[in-house]
Amino acid sequence: MKLHEIGEFGFIDRIAKMFQDLSSPGYLGIGDDCAVVPFNDKEDYVITTDLLIEDIHFLKDRITPMQLGHKSLAVNLSDIAAMGAKPVGSFLSIGIPAETEVEYLDSFMKGYRSLSQKYQVLLLGGDTTKSKKFLTINVGVIGKCSKGSARLRSMAQNDDIVCVTGFLGDSAGGLEVLLHRLPETKDNLQLIQYHHQPEPHINEGLWLAKQPEVRAMMDVSDGISSDLVHILKASGKSAVIDIDKIPVSDILRKVSSEHGWDLERLITSGGEDYVLLFTMKGNSFEEINAGYKAAFGRGLVKIGKIIEGESHIRWMQNNKEVAFAQHGFNHFNEAQFSRASGELKIVSRTLAKRSHERSE
Amino acid sequence: MKLHEIGEFGFIDRIAKMFQDLSSPGYLGIGDDCAVVPFNDKEDYVITTDLLIEDIHFLKDRITPMQLGHKSLAVNLSDIAAMGAKPVGSFLSIGIPAETEVEYLDSFMKGYRSLSQKYQVLLLGGDTTKSKKFLTINVGVIGKCSKGSARLRSMAQNDDIVCVTGFLGDSAGGLEVLLHRLPETKDNLQLIQYHHQPEPHINEGLWLAKQPEVRAMMDVSDGISSDLVHILKASGKSAVIDIDKIPVSDILRKVSSEHGWDLERLITSGGEDYVLLFTMKGNSFEEINAGYKAAFGRGLVKIGKIIEGESHIRWMQNNKEVAFAQHGFNHFNEAQFSRASGELKIVSRTLAKRSHERSE
Repeated sequence: MKLHEIGEFGFIDRIAKMFQDLSSPGYLGIGDDCAVVPFNDKEDYVITTDLLIEDIHFLKDRITPMQLGHKSLAVNLSDIAAMGAKPVGSFLSIGIPAETEVEYLDSFMKGYRSLSQKYQVLLLGGDTTKSKKFLTINVGVIGKCSKGSARLRSMAQNDDIVCVTGFLGDSAGGLEVLLHRLPETKDNLQLIQYHHQPEPHINEGLWLAKQPEVRAMMDVSDGISSDLVHILKASGKSAVIDIDKIPVSDILRKVSSEHGWDLERLITSGGEDYVLLFTMKGNSFEEINAGYKAAFGRGLVKIGKIIEGESHIRWMQNNKEVAFAQHGFNHFNEAQFSRASGELKIVSRTLAKRSHERSE
Repeated sequence: MKLHEIGEFGFIDRIAKMFQDLSSPGYLGIGDDCAVVPFNDKEDYVITTDLLIEDIHFLKDRITPMQLGHKSLAVNLSDIAAMGAKPVGSFLSIGIPAETEVEYLDSFMKGYRSLSQKYQVLLLGGDTTKSKKFLTINVGVIGKCSKGSARLRSMAQNDDIVCVTGFLGDSAGGLEVLLHRLPETKDNLQLIQYHHQPEPHINEGLWLAKQPEVRAMMDVSDGISSDLVHILKASGKSAVIDIDKIPVSDILRKVSSEHGWDLERLITSGGEDYVLLFTMKGNSFEEINAGYKAAFGRGLVKIGKIIEGESHIRWMQNNKEVAFAQHGFNHFNEAQFSRASGELKIVSRTLAKRSHERSE
């Protein structure tokens, strides 16, 4: 049987099942942005890990080593943020092709260090090894949160409002610019910057986790059409999402219209925005949003609500439901593989490989 | 500047320096088998991570998927053992080439699970992703030990006895069998088994860490000629090692003599034996060894002692010092790269690539 027949999440489910009888009180394993591991009476540790492989997750000639160092840590810090936790330390495993220059690695470490310093994340360990061909990076991060305060995907309740902490689609727009080698205009460079140097919403996640009204939370890594389904599955709910309410940056709107991009696809299935996607108690938006604005100088954005149902997203546009089958990224989807062609083949996390059937 | 000019450990030193101002009380970072992270009043967590890349650390057509699953976890459990800690949970990141069969992955997970179950290690999380060409595996393991009981490389003292918990060189012998495609005799298969399915000395490490006389400890992953130097550097000591006392299995002695292998090289620089290398207070061997024998049915082996000096190993043979420049594995050593030829090229962790100058 080929892997695409069961898909990435089918494979993860398969593994989780194999290990379900190995469990321990206080430990939360597979199925959320981070694992939860007991710390002391007042706190828990959360732990996450992410593997980045050259030509799959990044193209070495398009991302600077400093950006790559930043991004390798950022995608993990974003998982820590999604739990409402504070990052404490990181572990860096790096597989390095023989011809790599020390200067390249120094720049990589500079980007990694700069983000580490911003959030006071220690470098606690790792592994260095040779790699045959592809630069290979695995980062693990350990964080801390108040005991029981970690926000899990399973915490959404009926009538919760679904919110995000920032624009969606910018990173996907940046990837389009890169893949089509569009000219380096100011706008295009800004989109590339969002793609290559995402800012994890650590402080936002910490703030939100202090609000009892905030329930399920995760980060947007594969696109909300996929990410939200994880919350819905874990919580046993469905959701109504208003496409018109998804926050879109002026730059993305402009560049997208210039090139005739499918903007809805970018904002629902683009992924890698690393903003937070969360649900909060239905009647609490005004108060929470006022506090959030005071803290961060910008507001939260309501994009829908949680309803009874079986892990289904009802997409609304112009006040009516649209049949809209968007799928976020799945590493082992054959349709996603086979749609790749030409240059796009060298990146797997590309929009061009995703299946975007739209049936109306 | 090329990476081989500074070497693997030069690169690690470089990174450690960059991050030395980011530190926190109770946390021990780069420089030991595991990082130490505070847990509660009575215990510490220890954390380790290891990256394994196809054609660098293993050849997919020579190791069964079940053995690979076992080994991926075992090499990390061995680092936990080296701290004298008990493994608690693991994190598995896996980059999978598109053509991989689900059955292959199921077998891999079966091997991983079997060892997990043996030591009751939870699978707490991970990452699954596509890989362009090479199967890529990163495992992280978290363990626990009594507060302050973790055995560090820096703990060796003058006149300590240097001991190991098992035979050295068997794994390197197995690698020789594999690389030269020697016939599948019972002995040869046994050596391959040592190479592909090492048993981490978890219970041995836990037992040893309970003895106050046991000081510095680490696992033998790169060969004692390299590994012991880590202890010597961290402790600011030198050592005298009696080559004749290094424990060698009958099988290795026999197969080695059949093929004219350089046995001394295998046992001092072979690596991947994953036994424990440790030092203990000079006059305590008899008592500790008696207790160890009662617990494990086999004895510890004294191979030398710690002396004043600057990270140098004095090798003794037939009661006289021999000039013997053995080096364990270093991933970025040019001599190690350039000596590779033909089929051996496809494995980096091979004896054939190591520099074994012997000057007499």
